[in-house]
Amino acid sequence: MINIGIFGYGNLGRGVEAAVRQNDDLCLKAVFTRRDPQSVNVQTDGLPVYGEEKLLQMKDEIDVLILCGGSATDLPKQTPFYAQYFNVVDSFDNHAAIPAHFDAVNETATANGKTALISAGWDPGMFSVNRLYASCIQPEGKNYTFWGRGVSQGHSDAIRRIDGVADARQYTVPVEETVEIVRSGEQPTLTARQMHKRECFVVAKDGADKAAIETAIKTMPNYFEPYDTTVHFISAEEMKAEHSALPHGGFVIRSGVTGINKEHKNIIEYKLTLDSNPEFTSSVLVAGARAVYRLNKEGQCGCKTMFDIAPAYYSPLSADELRHTML
Amino acid sequence: MINIGIFGYGNLGRGVEAAVRQNDDLCLKAVFTRRDPQSVNVQTDGLPVYGEEKLLQMKDEIDVLILCGGSATDLPKQTPFYAQYFNVVDSFDNHAAIPAHFDAVNETATANGKTALISAGWDPGMFSVNRLYASCIQPEGKNYTFWGRGVSQGHSDAIRRIDGVADARQYTVPVEETVEIVRSGEQPTLTARQMHKRECFVVAKDGADKAAIETAIKTMPNYFEPYDTTVHFISAEEMKAEHSALPHGGFVIRSGVTGINKEHKNIIEYKLTLDSNPEFTSSVLVAGARAVYRLNKEGQCGCKTMFDIAPAYYSPLSADELRHTML
Repeated sequence: MINIGIFGYGNLGRGVEAAVRQNDDLCLKAVFTRRDPQSVNVQTDGLPVYGEEKLLQMKDEIDVLILCGGSATDLPKQTPFYAQYFNVVDSFDNHAAIPAHFDAVNETATANGKTALISAGWDPGMFSVNRLYASCIQPEGKNYTFWGRGVSQGHSDAIRRIDGVADARQYTVPVEETVEIVRSGEQPTLTARQMHKRECFVVAKDGADKAAIETAIKTMPNYFEPYDTTVHFISAEEMKAEHSALPHGGFVIRSGVTGINKEHKNIIEYKLTLDSNPEFTSSVLVAGARAVYRLNKEGQCGCKTMFDIAPAYYSPLSADELRHTML
Repeated sequence: MINIGIFGYGNLGRGVEAAVRQNDDLCLKAVFTRRDPQSVNVQTDGLPVYGEEKLLQMKDEIDVLILCGGSATDLPKQTPFYAQYFNVVDSFDNHAAIPAHFDAVNETATANGKTALISAGWDPGMFSVNRLYASCIQPEGKNYTFWGRGVSQGHSDAIRRIDGVADARQYTVPVEETVEIVRSGEQPTLTARQMHKRECFVVAKDGADKAAIETAIKTMPNYFEPYDTTVHFISAEEMKAEHSALPHGGFVIRSGVTGINKEHKNIIEYKLTLDSNPEFTSSVLVAGARAVYRLNKEGQCGCKTMFDIAPAYYSPLSADELRHTML
């Protein structure tokens, strides 16, 4: 059995708890939190919840620590620090900052004989892996990544910070006409507006100026201004009833050419349709924990990304079983 | 530069020749054939064509030998034999015989410090890799593999062996209604007939009994009897004009559930739409040659499948470049 610890118990931590239960070779030892442990209600009978200070005391009881904090401020500190003491997995998703995060984690993990997997999940994660495979097997081509239809937490939060907004949910939606062009094998150069549109559902506070809110959203640089954005004002009840779930997904398409005269088009598409964005990410983290454990047993220490890990490491089956059943 | 040799110059060998030219770090040294080398017309000026007897003489000039023979009789002999002298890649696609082929190749490659990649391509190959990843990250779920719409060489050949048939082309076609059910997240148990149908285009010889041919096709065990099969008789001219290409493709779908009560469905789909089936397979073999070369340089000898190779090995980019550009 591989003993798993969870640090951070939000949507991702809850997803890891559920995912570990779907894997017979994994055992959940404890949840660790920076909140008051008494205030945290886990979903598994008898699963202990401890404060962060207990983590280092339990370092010999936990084979892999899954870090479920946020990428903005939690993981840049937590992952390099805890990689001194544990094999770790995180879902660090600030793409531009990944190289620096990698270096920081690699330094502490390598120095301490630990193995770390960073930026696991779906993007970064499985989408990245598919961009890589597709680029290697169709070197003359172009990658397109579309997200949605799904809830973007970052964009929802940005709307909530506007004066007069009580609650908000933002859906990222691929532009269907553009998707069809890309799927046909054309390789257009596309603007942000051509690829995605943004659909916002907003609960306004009593007496708020809805027109002003709508303008504030549509003109917000980077988040909304480069996109066609629609804003719907709804009631708090409707928000709760219709927009409580966290679906997401998207697809990576590579359109390439082969043949001596490049006369043949080949399209590779990897598509995710997820009822639960955080639970899917958690499931990748949990498979990654298995890989990290096995790599560490083999003496392969330091920081890894999903690019560096052979697919077989994620599986509970032996190489021989995999060749018999899945090849 | 990585020096590549091609053994066998059919559709696959021609595809490898074209694919190598799309990769700046690879250099095609020679084509080897069991036919009279004078009778082989390659597509690259100055590329030498040699008989098989020349292969072992050139073992120090070739870093990776790509074996482009057939799975029925060529590869079971060639891959274990040449893995004594070369790093090799093949596309062995007889699924049931893969474990035995693996063992034979592993023995000679390991004994001689060579690295071999077998069963590369798309199925087995990228489809297998996707079945594996998807199974690991959604352990409670079900895999579905659909092929087509595309030409099946094996089924086309089976029709050509029927008395009175001058030429034939068979398309494997997924049953669209079934695909939609699977994409919706249901996990039905399906018969062969529910998943695929078979569409046959046949040129009959002069005076042949078309009704007898149609019956012979539709009642052929394994090949056609378990499927809904349609037969169209066409002219030789129409065959040449409309059915000379070798398109193929298909998709691997995994439908899984997550959540503490398994309340969320998540669908993973990997889809290929290929103008040229052999050229796409060849492109995978060529990326695999790069991986095999690098593994061998690191001392990782023996037989591998795509399950055992980390994605980064297929790429000409460094790990750092990959993290910056694709993660």
